[in-house]
Amino acid sequence: MQLGTLYGIGVGPGDPELISLKGLKLLQSVPVVAFPAGVGGKLGVAQQIVDRWLSLDIVQLALRFPYVRDESILEAAWLKAAEEVRYYLERGQDVAFVSEGDVSFYSTFAYLAAGVQKLDPSVRVEAIPGIISPVAAATSLGFPLAIGDRSLAVLPALYSMAELEAALDWADVVVLMKVSSVYEQVWQILHRRGLLDRSYIVERATCPDMKIYRGLSDRPNLKLPYFSLAIVQVAAPEPVFQTNRNF
Amino acid sequence: MQLGTLYGIGVGPGDPELISLKGLKLLQSVPVVAFPAGVGGKLGVAQQIVDRWLSLDIVQLALRFPYVRDESILEAAWLKAAEEVRYYLERGQDVAFVSEGDVSFYSTFAYLAAGVQKLDPSVRVEAIPGIISPVAAATSLGFPLAIGDRSLAVLPALYSMAELEAALDWADVVVLMKVSSVYEQVWQILHRRGLLDRSYIVERATCPDMKIYRGLSDRPNLKLPYFSLAIVQVAAPEPVFQTNRNF
Repeated sequence: MQLGTLYGIGVGPGDPELISLKGLKLLQSVPVVAFPAGVGGKLGVAQQIVDRWLSLDIVQLALRFPYVRDESILEAAWLKAAEEVRYYLERGQDVAFVSEGDVSFYSTFAYLAAGVQKLDPSVRVEAIPGIISPVAAATSLGFPLAIGDRSLAVLPALYSMAELEAALDWADVVVLMKVSSVYEQVWQILHRRGLLDRSYIVERATCPDMKIYRGLSDRPNLKLPYFSLAIVQVAAPEPVFQTNRNF
Repeated sequence: MQLGTLYGIGVGPGDPELISLKGLKLLQSVPVVAFPAGVGGKLGVAQQIVDRWLSLDIVQLALRFPYVRDESILEAAWLKAAEEVRYYLERGQDVAFVSEGDVSFYSTFAYLAAGVQKLDPSVRVEAIPGIISPVAAATSLGFPLAIGDRSLAVLPALYSMAELEAALDWADVVVLMKVSSVYEQVWQILHRRGLLDRSYIVERATCPDMKIYRGLSDRPNLKLPYFSLAIVQVAAPEPVFQTNRNF
């Protein structure tokens, strides 16, 4: 029997209509869709985004990826997920793994695809890109994320404040992904550098419950959800236009 | 008469099916579509991407943005483009400006929107994000653009090699947009740092004529088209999977 193909589909930042046409067509043609399982009894983020697009007879495979930093626990989880996916591939069924944002931008997809190809190097993998949250957030804020000769730095959930300082020294625009866990430390650095008025937070960009903070001067201790990002305009943000609706 | 709305739509990196569902619906509902005019008798890039989606009776407005760095020439061009767009808005017609990639990522849209709102601050502007070429290029290459604790730096068409050196010192992954005009200088720096084997070029990501160079060791003087980008994996690119087809 011919092996199924593993697809990775980036489904965009949150609004279900921001999936690409190509991604949607593929999603509606496969027998199995996989995604990171939700936590605390809630649907996972990618699962919420695609929920309205799934046919009733599609198999939904919730894969468990623990929120820890221990490499051995993570690797065991990726291997187990790869085995779950291989079960369907070996039976000739295509599997589409969906990821919020893009599959190549801080996504679990790369670990899953590498794990599946480690189990069986002949497995075909194809990936379809998606809209990443930093550009969606900038669009909602009404200024360009990057333009002209401006340089851009992106930091994941931060591990070192020295790295943030170096980014602020180097780049014209700095994006901090998943900023919630280090927000208070970040605020102190932005305060010291006089950048709070040029700093923005977007929670759950393009979702119905999106929340925007323009300027952080009076917000030293925001409680933010996991999917929050910060955009710091180190250089003045020109040109500025005003969006009137969030999409 | 009610003013029309100016929409900005990011139409993705090149494959027409990578437009978002939301962007496509909007594109097919407006009476006027605007885009940067092509040069040398060819259609503009954004125009090529959306061509198949346009209804026969839509007005196509090709705006001229000269490829120069002289600020006064550029500002005159943006103002003229803004006036052309305002002509339709004042007659109550919505105008959608389409941009390859995303409207907030090195796009002319911000200049146009700011120009239109300068002429008339009451004009409504709305923007819909799109898939940017760096993530599409990484997807085609078969490795994550950024993952885990890796940091990312993006440089526009380069003006200073010192800035590139600083980015290579700071970031785990460096993206060079529109690398063609400075390629030979960039190659020398990557050579000196021993990074040529971890450097990749993608021309026209996701287009039918996309071209990929994996490793640049034996390529000191590539002739590249305008829409070429380089990805430099300063830190080793893990995990790697192998995509079998190029989206």
